[in-house]
Parts: sequence; C-alpha cells; structure tokens
Amino acid sequence: MSDTKNLQMLLQCPMPKLDFDVITLGHGSGGILTNKLLDSGVFNLLSNDILDERHDGAFIEMNGKMAFSTDSFLISPIFFPGGNIGELAVNGTVNDLAMCGAIPKYLSLSFIIEEGLKVSEFWEILVSIKYACEKAGVQVVTGDTKVVEKGKGDKIFINTTGIGTIHTKANIRSKNIKTGDKIILSGNIASHGMAVMSVREGLEFDSEIKSDTTNLNYTIISLLEKFGNHIHLLTDPTRGGVATVLKETAQSTNLGIDIFQRNIPIEEQVANACELLGLDPLYVANEGLFISFIDASIADEFLKMLKKDNNGIHAKIIGSVVEEHPKQVILESAIGGKRVVSMLPGEQLPRIC
Amino acid sequence: MSDTKNLQMLLQCPMPKLDFDVITLGHGSGGILTNKLLDSGVFNLLSNDILDERHDGAFIEMNGKMAFSTDSFLISPIFFPGGNIGELAVNGTVNDLAMCGAIPKYLSLSFIIEEGLKVSEFWEILVSIKYACEKAGVQVVTGDTKVVEKGKGDKIFINTTGIGTIHTKANIRSKNIKTGDKIILSGNIASHGMAVMSVREGLEFDSEIKSDTTNLNYTIISLLEKFGNHIHLLTDPTRGGVATVLKETAQSTNLGIDIFQRNIPIEEQVANACELLGLDPLYVANEGLFISFIDASIADEFLKMLKKDNNGIHAKIIGSVVEEHPKQVILESAIGGKRVVSMLPGEQLPRIC
Repeated sequence: MSDTKNLQMLLQCPMPKLDFDVITLGHGSGGILTNKLLDSGVFNLLSNDILDERHDGAFIEMNGKMAFSTDSFLISPIFFPGGNIGELAVNGTVNDLAMCGAIPKYLSLSFIIEEGLKVSEFWEILVSIKYACEKAGVQVVTGDTKVVEKGKGDKIFINTTGIGTIHTKANIRSKNIKTGDKIILSGNIASHGMAVMSVREGLEFDSEIKSDTTNLNYTIISLLEKFGNHIHLLTDPTRGGVATVLKETAQSTNLGIDIFQRNIPIEEQVANACELLGLDPLYVANEGLFISFIDASIADEFLKMLKKDNNGIHAKIIGSVVEEHPKQVILESAIGGKRVVSMLPGEQLPRIC
Repeated sequence: MSDTKNLQMLLQCPMPKLDFDVITLGHGSGGILTNKLLDSGVFNLLSNDILDERHDGAFIEMNGKMAFSTDSFLISPIFFPGGNIGELAVNGTVNDLAMCGAIPKYLSLSFIIEEGLKVSEFWEILVSIKYACEKAGVQVVTGDTKVVEKGKGDKIFINTTGIGTIHTKANIRSKNIKTGDKIILSGNIASHGMAVMSVREGLEFDSEIKSDTTNLNYTIISLLEKFGNHIHLLTDPTRGGVATVLKETAQSTNLGIDIFQRNIPIEEQVANACELLGLDPLYVANEGLFISFIDASIADEFLKMLKKDNNGIHAKIIGSVVEEHPKQVILESAIGGKRVVSMLPGEQLPRIC
C-alpha cells in the first residue's frame, strides 16, 4: 500500500492504540463514537491552536484580498504510486489557491468515509495530510467526518476548501492575456493520470510511473515576487489535461493559441504507457504541473528562473497566444502537421482526482 | 418529490432545456461534458460577479476576525418533508457560522454526484440552494462538481464550506460559560430527525412531520446586537441531538448541567412518533434549532426577545449550569426523577444530515 516516502512518515508517526480496527457508521453519528474517534488521538496529528478549539467553526483572522477554493477528491485507488488521496486533497486545494496568485493559509477538511475503512488506512491518509500541510505551510483549522453505509461510497472521499491571501504583486485574470503572450508549461505531462491508470490496469514498467502530486505554492510565490503582473494567468491542468485547459482559456479570452508538440515535455515511459492504452497525453490529468500565460518580454528570464526550481526542471515554452483563429487551439505536430485541439470529449479516466 | 414550497420555487425557475436527462461520469471529467454542464445555464441560477469569473478559486475581500466552517451532507432520502439536501447544505453551514457569532457571507459548494442522477432532481436541489442562499444573505462564490460510478455514491453528496465575519459584539467560547448560566433552547426538538425517519419508515401521521431546516443567522445577529458578550456559547444540536451537545459542553467546561424535561419543547406528534419508534427525542437530530448558554441576568429579556422571532416562538429556558456534578448532565424527568444524560451511544439514525 505505502511507498517508501509514506513508510518513512509512518515510522515517525506511530498510530495511537485504539480498540477498533475499522470505521463504522457510529463514528459519523455525532455521538459517543464520533467523540471517541475525535478523542482517540488520531486527529491530534493535525493539532494546532485553532483546530483544537473544536467549535462548530474555526476562528481566524485575515485582511484584504483573498482567494477561496474548494475541491472534492474521489480518486480510485486511494493509494497510488507517488501518493495517496490525503496529500492529493491538500495539494489540490493549495494549488488552486496558488493559481489565483494567493498564499494558501487555512484549509477545511471534510471526510466522507464508507463504513469498513480500516483505521490503519485512515491513519496513513492523515499522516500524509499532516506532512503535505507542513510542506505547503498551511493549517487544517476546521473539519467534519461523516460515514456512509457500505456500498454507498468508496472507501473515502475528501473535500478540502482553502483560503489564502492574494500576493500583493499578483493580478491573475484570464482577461489580462493578450496576443503575443508566451505559454509556459512547468514540467512533464501525464504522470499523475498514468500512475493511477498503471495501477488500475495492472501495467508494469521498468521503473514505476509516479504521480507528480506536489504543492506548487512556493514556486508560484517566488515567480510572482519577481515578475508580478507580467504573469497574466496561472492554471493547473488537472482533470481534462493540458488540452482542455488551453481550450478553455482560448474560449474565455476569445484569442487563439498555438502550441508545438515537440516542446511539450513528457517522460518516455509515460508516453509509452499512453500509447499502449491508446490515450492522448494532452488529455491526461496532472497534479503538480502548471501553465503560465506571461508577457513575452519576460519569457526567457521566467523560464530560466522556473527551471532552477524543483517543480520546474523540465519547464518549456510550449506556445503563444495569437490573434488568428480566435477560441481555437492549434497544435503543430512533431512532423509539422497542424490539428485543432478540442476539450476532452466524454470521460477518459474517471475518478482520477 | 417536491412539497408545496419547492413547487412554488420551481415554478419561478423553469429548468433550461438540455439534451441530457441524467448526469453521467463525463459530466465530472473536467472536459467537454463538464463545460457543457457549466454552460447549460443550470449554474446560472447561482450567478454572481464572483462566481461568474469561473477561475480555480474565488476572489473575495474580507477584513478582521472571521469564522470558517465546513460540512458534508449525505442525507437519505435527498428530498424529505420540509426540505431537501440543497437547502440543508446551505442552512447547515450558515448556522455553523452563526453559532460562532459570525455573519455568514460566502459559501463554496461541492457536489459529489452518483452517475444516473436525474437532471430534474439536480435542478430542484439547485433551486432550493438559490433560495436558501438568498434567504440567508450568502453567496456561493466557488464550486466543484464530481461524478462517481453507480454504486459508489448515493445520488448526491454536498459539501458546503463557509466564511463569515465575526460580529463585533460576539465573544462565543465555551470557556466563557460559568456557574449560574441559563440554558435556552430555541424551539421544538426532534422535528428534522423524525421528518426523515417518517419517510424512511413509511409512517403516516394526521399532519406531516416536517424538518425544521432553516437559517438562524438573522435571529442570532439580532440577539448578539442586543446582548453581546452576555451570550457565552451558541451551539446547534444537529447530529446526536440536544443530549449530546449538552454532554459535550459539560465535558469541555468541566461544569455540571441540570435540565428539566417538562421545559423541553416538543410537538405532540413528534413525541408520539419517537415513542412509536422507540427513540429518545433528546438524541434525535435538529436543523433549525440552537442552544444558548447565557448570563442569568439577561435570561428573561433574552427569552422574551427570542420568542418574538419566527425561529424562537417555542423557546424555553431548559436548565442551568451548576457547580455540582462537573462534566455531568442531569435530567429531571416530568415526574421528578433524575437521570444522568450521556452522549448518543452508537448510531441512532444514519445519514440524517
């Protein structure tokens, strides 16, 4: 279940001794069992002054412009190469806030558990939530735990909702995008989706394909510090992949987008896995990746700085914003042919995040 | 499915014409179908300037002390006498914020839909979300829609997370409770739980038992305006009922609580239904009810003011905080006997909210 990273975390966080092995309906009742779960020490893992008040809501103090974002995570399987649903839920909302130009600060955490979930699995998820929060510099300040009957859920769903303060230099809006803007992709595409698919399909490769789930907030903040409002839009190509996000942006701005396949970074074995399964990597979900629409004047310097960051080593300029073909994304293939890129049609990979 | 109240709302909000009748996995893909759902006009119902930006998160501005609260709603059935899961989800989080002494302002809204949900049912839920938001004076500013395979969810689960500004006169903390404080219950108990149970068990009564789901924020705000920090704690007895909330408060304050059964208001047919099903109404969930722990000096005036409010017509002083028997809640029965009140043991009514 756990990969090396998680095993190390678990060694540092031994599970409290409990007199129950699985979560039951009673743990969601609001009564004795809920309080027993709350008092069991399980949630102490996430302890902080605000959360520890255990009121109906958290008392926080914030000032000025903020971003507020929500996401529910239903990934299957809940443990996958490179991570699990817990850190995914933290990173996902942290990144959504970062894409708004915000410094993420507080998270709410809501569990919908299917009865029968092993407490040891729940613990492992909580441990990875703890570490993901520490890494991203955010605190879980309020939460909720509900339990559904067997067959009315699937192990565990997690909602995280976050608040962050907008960086003073940030002005992230799709309407700021203009003709000539460069489009920068921060790294290799399709890793998250193919990591999950390889487990589901039982595929084995020379080396394991791992999800790229990670927090992007510090990377974004340092770029905002330096380039401020030259950064016009930030967006993370999760569900629907790079293609869908680009198409949405073309549509909302009424501008055209040209991208070049040879510039789109992808790991060889991820590309091979996509080919094997007949999937176009442009539509496969990513978790630790972002696309920046920036003023052409800063493109080289932006790329240079991003490539020095752990989250941007493989960054590339993949294309630019053009006046021609408004609302259309045109991909120039490796051999020079051109094709129109649409959004993901139908459902490619259900339950990918 | 719909009761009179909902029918009136639906008449005022005709559903946009769509070329699909049910929600499918593709509507949660993030691709074409998700965008089709977003563009269908369905979500225009909740339109406001912030939501309409459709970025990864909402841009909001707030200052000072705030409350932040989250809740996932999994009630079954999703339509019940007196309401549905949509307004329940709005009112639930609005009330959690109000219990913190906050003026609720912004909500996030996250749907986990089981494939096959009828769009007409989804529409009805959205309509009641719209009206509940208007009634409570809050805006949905950011959202998320995910879809799970049939059998991995149950029609629809909804997470709402809310932010509100703490009222300047509010100082709501259980540590403010002291010996002599009066405990005021705002109305009849057990209506929500028994409304849901009567549907599940197919019970019929002379007149239908209806859920008490409603927003309490305006009631709370006017009480805070008048009585400020004489109000020590506000709490809503949802899951686990009145008994569980009182026991939790006794435990966290290390004080005792005495309550008097003859003062606890309950509708006759709700009491009868509880007896029929062998349920103690003290443990049955409420949605539009709150318990106030207040300074004894204001008790009469507080009760008088609350009873003039639509949400407090049946309010009663049900007991007081005592030095004796710390951490214990003692109920004096109608015939004078005394018993210790514990939290809800196990799970009485799964999926009640």
